[in-house]
Amino acid sequence: MAREKEVVLLSFWSSPFALRARIALAEKGVRHEIREENLSDKSHLLLRMNPVHKKIPVLIHSGKPVCESSLIVQYIDEVWNQESPLLPSDPYERAQARFWVDLVDKKVYLAAQRVWFIKGGPEDGAKEDLMEVFKLLETELGEKAYFGGDRFGYLDVSFFPYYLAIHLLETAESRLGGEMDAKLPKLEGWMKRCMLRESVSSVLPDLDKLSDQFQQVRKKRLDEQA
Amino acid sequence: MAREKEVVLLSFWSSPFALRARIALAEKGVRHEIREENLSDKSHLLLRMNPVHKKIPVLIHSGKPVCESSLIVQYIDEVWNQESPLLPSDPYERAQARFWVDLVDKKVYLAAQRVWFIKGGPEDGAKEDLMEVFKLLETELGEKAYFGGDRFGYLDVSFFPYYLAIHLLETAESRLGGEMDAKLPKLEGWMKRCMLRESVSSVLPDLDKLSDQFQQVRKKRLDEQA
Repeated sequence: MAREKEVVLLSFWSSPFALRARIALAEKGVRHEIREENLSDKSHLLLRMNPVHKKIPVLIHSGKPVCESSLIVQYIDEVWNQESPLLPSDPYERAQARFWVDLVDKKVYLAAQRVWFIKGGPEDGAKEDLMEVFKLLETELGEKAYFGGDRFGYLDVSFFPYYLAIHLLETAESRLGGEMDAKLPKLEGWMKRCMLRESVSSVLPDLDKLSDQFQQVRKKRLDEQA
Repeated sequence: MAREKEVVLLSFWSSPFALRARIALAEKGVRHEIREENLSDKSHLLLRMNPVHKKIPVLIHSGKPVCESSLIVQYIDEVWNQESPLLPSDPYERAQARFWVDLVDKKVYLAAQRVWFIKGGPEDGAKEDLMEVFKLLETELGEKAYFGGDRFGYLDVSFFPYYLAIHLLETAESRLGGEMDAKLPKLEGWMKRCMLRESVSSVLPDLDKLSDQFQQVRKKRLDEQA
């Protein structure tokens, strides 16, 4: 299909935001080109395609940009709507899926930043905030295989990259007190289930390399606060 | 229609977030009941319907809650989809409308908080941040009647309540340097156009009363920081 040849993703290999878009494209089987950005010397294309935020990922479809990872996933779902629907068809269930992704976007990323990327801390309740959101999501998942039930969907695509990043950070440098397997058994099982999916495993970087990268970024950020 | 009889909005009269939902319901002509909350003594219904955020507005439809104002507007648009579509039908245009609402949600509210509700300040670039987003929106609006063109849409519904609140705060206590008419002529014209719409004027509180309320909240918040 001609339209599939015109899909370009401006990306960065270790970004959880970019991983959302990559998994969604893989779920749909959309042929696309990945252009790796140098985040300390961003391309003219990135600055032109995302002048407001100047951030990856940007999905460029037939020359037109879509920005912000959760909006990219929704866009992919709406354009390639015949294959592997990610959002439910029922408006109420759609609103619920959007509610949880919104919560992940508002709470998980910032709390994780406060836990791992701020010197000294966290003394400001960040750990508790993060665990509270995780507990809510553990309850929401319940006994289901995925958040959408049997079907891997919008919340799975959107939450998995964050959860994996936090799992790797916690494994390397425990700041949540470890024992995630014991504290969040359902989310841990879900994470492993996600990793076995073709759409995820085919785009997931090597986990040791990813963990090293997060540690390096962490060290750099903490050094900058010295 | 039976479904319309089962629509309840948990609301607070001066909330820009609640106003979004009220305008969307009015645009669609959805019959509904408004239940005014006492925000310093929240009802059991509110706490049960929105246990995660414990905030208004909550749209209760056939007993089931939808939370977060931008998600409520999308839900209303999807359920009552025959009347006055708010989001465009084209996926790309939908993604663009969502992009701008996301920007408003991420930047405008917080920047306005920093400008008017923090003692002493703002010395931290909040004014500049707010004016920068407004300039972007002024450019995006251009010569159009509404952000969606001739049609009042998702971004209009979502941005108008914030813009009006800031317009009233600035009129009462200039902290952006005044002259919004001169600095943002297109947004000011658009705001006045929005206010003339039946869906807006029919739900808009008295502007003097609204301005007084914002001033009282401001005074209380600043006193708490004393």
